[in-house]
Amino acid sequence: MKLVVKAGKSNSMKHHFGDDLAQAVERMKSPIVVGLDPRWEQLPANLREGGDSLEVRARAYSRFCNEVSDVVASLAPAVKVQAAFFEELGPAGMSAMAKVITHARERGLLVILDGKRNDIGSTAEAYARGYLGGEESAWGADALTVSPYLGDDSLTPFVDVALERGAGVFVLVKTSNPGGRMLQDLVTDGEPMYGRVAQHVEQLASQTVGKAGYGSIGAVVGATYPQQLAELRAAMPHTWLLVPGYGSQGGTAADVAAAFDARGLGAIVNNSRGIIFAYARPEYAGRFGEARWQEAVEAATLDMINELRSA
Amino acid sequence: MKLVVKAGKSNSMKHHFGDDLAQAVERMKSPIVVGLDPRWEQLPANLREGGDSLEVRARAYSRFCNEVSDVVASLAPAVKVQAAFFEELGPAGMSAMAKVITHARERGLLVILDGKRNDIGSTAEAYARGYLGGEESAWGADALTVSPYLGDDSLTPFVDVALERGAGVFVLVKTSNPGGRMLQDLVTDGEPMYGRVAQHVEQLASQTVGKAGYGSIGAVVGATYPQQLAELRAAMPHTWLLVPGYGSQGGTAADVAAAFDARGLGAIVNNSRGIIFAYARPEYAGRFGEARWQEAVEAATLDMINELRSA
Repeated sequence: MKLVVKAGKSNSMKHHFGDDLAQAVERMKSPIVVGLDPRWEQLPANLREGGDSLEVRARAYSRFCNEVSDVVASLAPAVKVQAAFFEELGPAGMSAMAKVITHARERGLLVILDGKRNDIGSTAEAYARGYLGGEESAWGADALTVSPYLGDDSLTPFVDVALERGAGVFVLVKTSNPGGRMLQDLVTDGEPMYGRVAQHVEQLASQTVGKAGYGSIGAVVGATYPQQLAELRAAMPHTWLLVPGYGSQGGTAADVAAAFDARGLGAIVNNSRGIIFAYARPEYAGRFGEARWQEAVEAATLDMINELRSA
Repeated sequence: MKLVVKAGKSNSMKHHFGDDLAQAVERMKSPIVVGLDPRWEQLPANLREGGDSLEVRARAYSRFCNEVSDVVASLAPAVKVQAAFFEELGPAGMSAMAKVITHARERGLLVILDGKRNDIGSTAEAYARGYLGGEESAWGADALTVSPYLGDDSLTPFVDVALERGAGVFVLVKTSNPGGRMLQDLVTDGEPMYGRVAQHVEQLASQTVGKAGYGSIGAVVGATYPQQLAELRAAMPHTWLLVPGYGSQGGTAADVAAAFDARGLGAIVNNSRGIIFAYARPEYAGRFGEARWQEAVEAATLDMINELRSA
């Protein structure tokens, strides 16, 4: 089933997500992903004017996220759009999400859609075709996060569509939350479950290695488990790691240092609230305040870049 | 974070998803869920007129699904809306999905949104608040499918919102696809992983038992593994089972018989393609043809009800 006209077979010829990401990280000299997680109560007050209907909120979300993209486009290689907050607002939220993805790409940012999707067969393929591959898809993201609970055959359609379109996939391997241990750390024949998922993802990544040495199929590994992060970096030498859990969830620059290779590649570290709502953090509230929230975004991004560099 | 005005605290007083489902199954004397999985190439030709833009397809999807709901509203207790096919069409598809959910509920059907969502903390809560609880949410589904890879603390927000609003959650336990075995069947200390998920879900279900003896937190268990289906029925006495894999995927009426209790409750069996595209099946093509596809939907639904009854 190929619903979307493949205008750009050329796209797959020109693009390789693993390489695109490496180039963007090297161009920006920073491995940061800014998480676009709009939350109504935390938006600057001037964006919350005009009531709080779903439509008003959706417009505020796209305006807010687009301004964040404008600020970070010259500092960060990528943004991660959290689908849940847009989905919460119904169809109006989804229209806002489409605008946010388009705007970020127009600013030259790579867009990772954090949707943690998964399904089987042609249903998984529908998700992949809808979300992945820039102009070739309805939503236009460069990469999508995917959950592995349904197993290897559920990942295949995502991988196939991503490779066909020069896009990427990040498979959940070891998540940053405490409860992630419940299933991910179960040990069978001496190996934890996340290790098996990692092995499968590394196999997919190694089959798609680009010029920079990394494949287009990556893994999500939380900053809150630094030991496993180091272990998985070693076990997955061809796999880009998308590392959540920095900042608000407790992960530090020292915790994520082991995620990078000697060139400073191989990992991108996400920060959502710590950057986009920096205006409310004690470090920035006095300097900028709510009215100059964009400058707080810029300062927090620069500070995170420096923290990562010194560690 | 409570984004949606809770107009109906009364809703949670009046509604209990486990009981609502039991009543609907008993009223219809059938445990069938009709899967609304629209696929462009398989739609009857007269619905595919007017081009194939995303907007045209989205309108065709809502028209098709709404007509299916009209036909099955007097035969089946519930429909399962497959989010992926609507998401594939971008924002236009999402608007169509909202219309399909609303229309099915207006026809008296319970609506299970098959989105296999999962995330942590307030992000998981955003999904739950957006999708669950009829008029209290932007989308208005009665229940949502959820993936457990992120562990128990990722399920809690879905469970909390569902219970607060009288809605339901179906957690993936043992899926119908062959690759599901990769992780779900891994054995730790003598127990497969799906067994641990099942134990957790049964605990949640048993804490929310209604008058009919079942909780509002259910489990997805595929028809394609009849032995595990029987085993899980016994291990999860308070848990509604949502059983996919019937028909097109190979599950038979005999395979799913063990999913039911003595009263014929405790399980609902999904059929998507086998019902909604019945007009193309050899059994119905000659009798109805493409032009009378709605009658083929009706006949296939009645035939499935009879198959389940005789087994």
